[in-house]
Amino acid sequence: MRVSERIEKDSLGSKEVPASAYYGIQTLRAVENFPITGVPVHSELIVALAHVKKAAAQANTELKRLPHAIAEAIIQAAEEVSLGGWHDQFIVDSIQGGAGTSINMNMNEVLANRALEIMGHPKGDYFHCNPNNHVNMSQSTNDTIPTALRISAYLLSMRLLQTMRELHVGFVQKQSAFDDVIKMGRTHLQDAVPIRMGQEFGAYARVTERDIGRVTRAAEGLLSVNIGATAVGTGLNATPEYIARVVAHLAEDLQIPVHSAEDLVDATQNTDAYTELSAALKVCAMNLSKICNDIRMMASGPKVGLAEITLPPRQPGSSIMPGKVNPVMAEVVNQVAFQVMGNDHTICVASEAGQFELNVMGPVIAFNLLQSLKVLQRGIDAFNRFALEGMEANRDRCKTYVNQSFGIVTALNPHLGYDVAAQLVKESMATGISIRELILERQLLTPEEMEEILDPVQMTTPGIAGERLLTEQS
Amino acid sequence: MRVSERIEKDSLGSKEVPASAYYGIQTLRAVENFPITGVPVHSELIVALAHVKKAAAQANTELKRLPHAIAEAIIQAAEEVSLGGWHDQFIVDSIQGGAGTSINMNMNEVLANRALEIMGHPKGDYFHCNPNNHVNMSQSTNDTIPTALRISAYLLSMRLLQTMRELHVGFVQKQSAFDDVIKMGRTHLQDAVPIRMGQEFGAYARVTERDIGRVTRAAEGLLSVNIGATAVGTGLNATPEYIARVVAHLAEDLQIPVHSAEDLVDATQNTDAYTELSAALKVCAMNLSKICNDIRMMASGPKVGLAEITLPPRQPGSSIMPGKVNPVMAEVVNQVAFQVMGNDHTICVASEAGQFELNVMGPVIAFNLLQSLKVLQRGIDAFNRFALEGMEANRDRCKTYVNQSFGIVTALNPHLGYDVAAQLVKESMATGISIRELILERQLLTPEEMEEILDPVQMTTPGIAGERLLTEQS
Amino acid sequence: MRVSERIEKDSLGSKEVPASAYYGIQTLRAVENFPITGVPVHSELIVALAHVKKAAAQANTELKRLPHAIAEAIIQAAEEVSLGGWHDQFIVDSIQGGAGTSINMNMNEVLANRALEIMGHPKGDYFHCNPNNHVNMSQSTNDTIPTALRISAYLLSMRLLQTMRELHVGFVQKQSAFDDVIKMGRTHLQDAVPIRMGQEFGAYARVTERDIGRVTRAAEGLLSVNIGATAVGTGLNATPEYIARVVAHLAEDLQIPVHSAEDLVDATQNTDAYTELSAALKVCAMNLSKICNDIRMMASGPKVGLAEITLPPRQPGSSIMPGKVNPVMAEVVNQVAFQVMGNDHTICVASEAGQFELNVMGPVIAFNLLQSLKVLQRGIDAFNRFALEGMEANRDRCKTYVNQSFGIVTALNPHLGYDVAAQLVKESMATGISIRELILERQLLTPEEMEEILDPVQMTTPGIAGERLLTEQS
Amino acid sequence: MRVSERIEKDSLGSKEVPASAYYGIQTLRAVENFPITGVPVHSELIVALAHVKKAAAQANTELKRLPHAIAEAIIQAAEEVSLGGWHDQFIVDSIQGGAGTSINMNMNEVLANRALEIMGHPKGDYFHCNPNNHVNMSQSTNDTIPTALRISAYLLSMRLLQTMRELHVGFVQKQSAFDDVIKMGRTHLQDAVPIRMGQEFGAYARVTERDIGRVTRAAEGLLSVNIGATAVGTGLNATPEYIARVVAHLAEDLQIPVHSAEDLVDATQNTDAYTELSAALKVCAMNLSKICNDIRMMASGPKVGLAEITLPPRQPGSSIMPGKVNPVMAEVVNQVAFQVMGNDHTICVASEAGQFELNVMGPVIAFNLLQSLKVLQRGIDAFNRFALEGMEANRDRCKTYVNQSFGIVTALNPHLGYDVAAQLVKESMATGISIRELILERQLLTPEEMEEILDPVQMTTPGIAGERLLTEQS
Repeated sequence: MRVSERIEKDSLGSKEVPASAYYGIQTLRAVENFPITGVPVHSELIVALAHVKKAAAQANTELKRLPHAIAEAIIQAAEEVSLGGWHDQFIVDSIQGGAGTSINMNMNEVLANRALEIMGHPKGDYFHCNPNNHVNMSQSTNDTIPTALRISAYLLSMRLLQTMRELHVGFVQKQSAFDDVIKMGRTHLQDAVPIRMGQEFGAYARVTERDIGRVTRAAEGLLSVNIGATAVGTGLNATPEYIARVVAHLAEDLQIPVHSAEDLVDATQNTDAYTELSAALKVCAMNLSKICNDIRMMASGPKVGLAEITLPPRQPGSSIMPGKVNPVMAEVVNQVAFQVMGNDHTICVASEAGQFELNVMGPVIAFNLLQSLKVLQRGIDAFNRFALEGMEANRDRCKTYVNQSFGIVTALNPHLGYDVAAQLVKESMATGISIRELILERQLLTPEEMEEILDPVQMTTPGIAGERLLTEQS
Repeated sequence: MRVSERIEKDSLGSKEVPASAYYGIQTLRAVENFPITGVPVHSELIVALAHVKKAAAQANTELKRLPHAIAEAIIQAAEEVSLGGWHDQFIVDSIQGGAGTSINMNMNEVLANRALEIMGHPKGDYFHCNPNNHVNMSQSTNDTIPTALRISAYLLSMRLLQTMRELHVGFVQKQSAFDDVIKMGRTHLQDAVPIRMGQEFGAYARVTERDIGRVTRAAEGLLSVNIGATAVGTGLNATPEYIARVVAHLAEDLQIPVHSAEDLVDATQNTDAYTELSAALKVCAMNLSKICNDIRMMASGPKVGLAEITLPPRQPGSSIMPGKVNPVMAEVVNQVAFQVMGNDHTICVASEAGQFELNVMGPVIAFNLLQSLKVLQRGIDAFNRFALEGMEANRDRCKTYVNQSFGIVTALNPHLGYDVAAQLVKESMATGISIRELILERQLLTPEEMEEILDPVQMTTPGIAGERLLTEQS
Repeated sequence: MRVSERIEKDSLGSKEVPASAYYGIQTLRAVENFPITGVPVHSELIVALAHVKKAAAQANTELKRLPHAIAEAIIQAAEEVSLGGWHDQFIVDSIQGGAGTSINMNMNEVLANRALEIMGHPKGDYFHCNPNNHVNMSQSTNDTIPTALRISAYLLSMRLLQTMRELHVGFVQKQSAFDDVIKMGRTHLQDAVPIRMGQEFGAYARVTERDIGRVTRAAEGLLSVNIGATAVGTGLNATPEYIARVVAHLAEDLQIPVHSAEDLVDATQNTDAYTELSAALKVCAMNLSKICNDIRMMASGPKVGLAEITLPPRQPGSSIMPGKVNPVMAEVVNQVAFQVMGNDHTICVASEAGQFELNVMGPVIAFNLLQSLKVLQRGIDAFNRFALEGMEANRDRCKTYVNQSFGIVTALNPHLGYDVAAQLVKESMATGISIRELILERQLLTPEEMEEILDPVQMTTPGIAGERLLTEQS
Repeated sequence: MRVSERIEKDSLGSKEVPASAYYGIQTLRAVENFPITGVPVHSELIVALAHVKKAAAQANTELKRLPHAIAEAIIQAAEEVSLGGWHDQFIVDSIQGGAGTSINMNMNEVLANRALEIMGHPKGDYFHCNPNNHVNMSQSTNDTIPTALRISAYLLSMRLLQTMRELHVGFVQKQSAFDDVIKMGRTHLQDAVPIRMGQEFGAYARVTERDIGRVTRAAEGLLSVNIGATAVGTGLNATPEYIARVVAHLAEDLQIPVHSAEDLVDATQNTDAYTELSAALKVCAMNLSKICNDIRMMASGPKVGLAEITLPPRQPGSSIMPGKVNPVMAEVVNQVAFQVMGNDHTICVASEAGQFELNVMGPVIAFNLLQSLKVLQRGIDAFNRFALEGMEANRDRCKTYVNQSFGIVTALNPHLGYDVAAQLVKESMATGISIRELILERQLLTPEEMEEILDPVQMTTPGIAGERLLTEQS
């Protein structure tokens, strides 16, 4: 052993640990075993786990199971980590075998060594503060990690929801700003009937509202935590008093309404809280992707596309084509959406792989769920600020389109019948003579009747254009 | 033209239609265009669409837009279809281009021809009852098909929920029946600590309860229908009075609380009601698959497996291995779960493919969503009746397992510490000497203390085994 | 027992079977157990399984294990089924527990009873021809079903490949027909630089060619069959002579180069032949979906879209909008692609669920794989005949677009530099003055130089427009 | 502007850049626009892109388009980056809008500024070496990024294949080592017939061999690069001589057989090379996951599981359960497999989203594809070294199982018939009397015949146990 190292032991043997390291032997084993993604565990999960350790130490000392001095040191160490301290000591990989044992032990070792330091003992002197017996007292990986994952996912969900609400506001503002922009509605990418652009953005606002509701409801499921379940949910080595206290400490400390799961066996083996949230994120992602597809098509051009809207230029669009500007903020949201969809797939198959009392695929679930929450929040935020806010409607272009299109003939159905209207379109396409000219030429309607029926603005709200005329007829 | 055919025309030309057919030219075009799956449109969707047509005819005649005689005939025809009549006339494929135009026109043509027949006119004499002008009056494919899909998915969801509730009851009954079956809990497929089998089935009941909640909430979203939206959601050719009346008729006729979507543009272009439901089904499917995996493992054997439970034999398990019986009912639920997961994928990508005012991928969404609802309901029902009801616990085997296992040493942690307990396991494995013997041999505990701590039943509820002893010590 | 029924027995008990039925007790058990999709087993699988049964009977009688008279009757019965006979007797569901035991027994029972009939015995008189001992001799579900699935998937792949080759020809024809159609290339849906429409269809042809290669290679993997593996791949109850003969009979009968898998244990437990094929279908489906998206966008309009191509009208596009025609053939291929993607997902998770010597999820794999092969073949065929063949380019519109666009300035880079070119675009957009006018106004190039550089046709092949001028400069 | 910053301009305006930075204004715009994952672009992609830039500079100066001095400086800068230098200057996010324009410009800017430094000019003095005009000469994001992605994916595939070959060797070694371990085969998790453990590992070796073949074939597709395609594949601003030279330089520099795509338009718009590779990785991942599931089940126990094999202990398995050791290396491969499956999903939907001449979703494809290659290689490597190498068979346990089981009765079929054999099992289960005893008791076989037929080792190769006896009978 070199001077800069200390020897640590566990049930499988011993290992040299860097003398300055707060982590210990089990962390090192995990680093050796799992060199997978190169991405460390999400910092929100580390923070949440520190909160769990702190709450457990508080409960254990209150119940006289953990000596006060040790508890104080653990609590201080955990608070430091929860505030962002010592994060460089969490060196195990995001994807790890063992259902999170490695990140739990990484935390137990870091807190134990930091607590030893606080108490004036050398690192590794686990007699005075042991990772398993003291820091992990009354706990198991199988309750601390799911509890920490739920808390971190909940907190990230709250951040996401705030951003989704801003997006909703952004859509509502455009609904209002574009309310008077008359344009051609499109179905099948074919000209349909007139619509107001504000109605389209109103629809985006509505679906975003429902997405907010879905994510909100799914996040609520995360508040039911299984701390105290210990190994298999039966609560072996955790007393009811302890469970009540640790949850109360968590709720107070984090200021979120976490509560103890009604059935700890259930809460330990099932992962539906994650799949439900991921599914809500995926539904949201698909809706956003559809919206961004619309926006990219509406912004297509500038000359050889629809050009119904203009997006704020954010960066030169090409390394070779001068003057090109691309809808990059919408494109990045599409990509985020695809990422969230793929992550949901991973989470699903991992969830299905649970067996008996535990789903040991927790780490890959955490990796993907927390990433989805993060990239969705960031993608929406960037889109909102850099694309939606400065978006402008090209009113003249939209109006020209409406005037050119045949779609307005639908309003003639109640007056002339579907077949006659279809015939008018066919002839207009073949001859180039406008629908209006054909109507008048054949005296199908008087000019006044025609204008009353073919007013595009009137077509954008429920009703029969020229209904008055029908009543008179009948 | 042969005598057995009639000629029909539409805007693209004319076609010979079998004289006896109730469908017409547009149906035939669709049959020619889309020979895809060979599977006709789901009968629940046809029934729901007939209800929509009936309600529209009622509203239109009440508002004096549709002559009473024609309305009466259409209503009678629609009722016949809603009761299962003429379903052989719906010959268009489940997967069809055109967002459902073909099934909508198939319905319009069948109802028109049946109405003509009722009124005493020959088939194809559309002057007296026209598929577009009369049957489809105030409607578009874009509002009738989504409305019918929502209604049919809602009704199938209600049926599924009834079956899920029965499954929940089944699990609760096993929770009770197996409450005294002590067995080894497993994590990582490795022996963990004791648990009661009833607790495991209780966990299955809990997650099923949440699945019921998720499907219930998702189904509610289907009640918001877009009938009256017509082509793009603006309600062109549909008056507010009409919209109110058609929805009221649907609610009364079907006895379900359908209501008009707050924003018809939104409700026409967005498909999140389907993706939300499909996501809920998928989450449920994964949970069920996990449960069935557990059950198949618990039932593994008979000699060379866990054999903790016995499933009712349902069929000889092998065409070659005599006496073999397989857990086929659990296997079929696994397969149903995989089908639902794949269907969800199809629904998702189809949903993301919506553009502007409409998602034209409706048919493939309907095909997969209605199939998911159906196979999940049927799979659960079969599992419940043929596997869960008659399942029995092999109590002796489970008890023997507990006695053999090392997992009980976890209860020693508070008394002897993690390291000492780990050492005992190591030695017991190496020497074959039981944990109990080692404890006594080394006088780590008195026999009385040991038995108090190592009582497996006590380990299955929260608490520290032998807590009394700790208190005395401290 | 009513007169119209007979009693059959198996190891679990007895059951009444309709007297006229060729299927027997085990089929009835399966029908009761698995009322899942309502869709019977794919007829191609039934045909392939009949071929397997015939080949086994041939081999067994040649090896003197199966009496000649019984073999003859079984062979005749199997031939009848392979030619489409008695398919109404295959009544078990597509999705069934038991890895295909039910469809195998359904086949064994139908062939046994038909053989009995041929031999002059009453149905159910299994002493003279027993479903297990005679029809299933030397076989197991675990070798007959995978062998039949591979054969049926192979034959459907061959049909699909023929259709894909026709699609390839169709694209090549358009590549040629549209070779002189100059149009604006688009990246990010933004105007890029000129391209010939023939180049676009050439790209579609190229990727289709690679898809043909992928499906061809994947299909080859299906030719390696595991017949003779019996229960777990060890070949218990199947002699090497039998294995060689049954495979030879299959190859001769079907005229396809099936061969015995090198390692029967491997071939029995692994399902990668299916996942590889499904993955190839999925890659093909995504490519097709992308192509159809392009085509739908190019066909968008007629007035308010790109309108670069015109598709043959196949059916009226709307029940409400007169004269509307939609790109329904492209839409249906999109939907088929989504179906294939979802099916691949199901196949994947089912494949991952294999355990030890067998993957018991075979039925759901078969259901989805055969459906994917079928709908892809049919969707492509319909698209090819109804959309691609009659597609026309709108040459004038495309040319007008090129003249309007800024994209041509990219050719100025080598001459004026990226920054100057970008500035020209900016000014042209702001002022409406054309790029050409600005160049001449500022004397950046002579008129001759400018025209040489800005020739759009020249831009569509590798090279520097006006390269001669650069050489002179340097 | 502070002294530590310089001002840079582009077509959208100007921005302050840190004076010491090698990146420039467009990089900063991208950082602002895309704060998505927090994960920088994969270093293999950066290295490959540097190679592309070097090759382009070489070709351009050879063709006298790029002044020699500038080319030399760019080449040196590119070499530095390809050797790992300046990687901290690549600060744009993995997921970015714009199809990779940002990482391409990040590279162009870094190389330009480093080249300026080499040439003795201050950073930002782009007159002497311009990111677009010099570094990006004859290039576009649309050809450099796909070319770099293909190269990096190819190189990572080679590394993965090496590891897969090691895994294959590992399985073959176990096939050999466990060839004499007789055990019960399992189908449906139910006792089937005997098999040798070596046969199981042989099957794992076979499927791994096919996986190697699939990944090898898919990787070959990556060698066809589109450099020279420039913006849309037409090669505007890139001469045929340039294209030939740049590809030749790449091949020589990297020592891999890259070649120019036959059709550059195709190679620019299509992403099937990535989806094909990802699909091959996914198929491999599923096979691995199945194998790891088997291994985890075989290793289940130690007391209350199958315990047919023992895995090398790698780390304490529990923070609460002393002495517990989990199959963590198999679990991490399961998780890696799920990650690869989800990544494939993202890649698929991103691939389907290509439009016209380009797929702008390249960045999210690259992010997931390179991650899949990396985690799969690392996961397999860790599994191979830490689980497979030290794995041991529990021979006695396996043998005991065979002796306990009923599965051997299958060998009786040819001698006694399926029904009699089934009856024996039924009675043995009910009475506890062994199959052998029942046979003798009823004089179904002589003791010698029985032993000849029921030899479990003989059952593990094709053939009829006791075939001799049959021949004698007939």
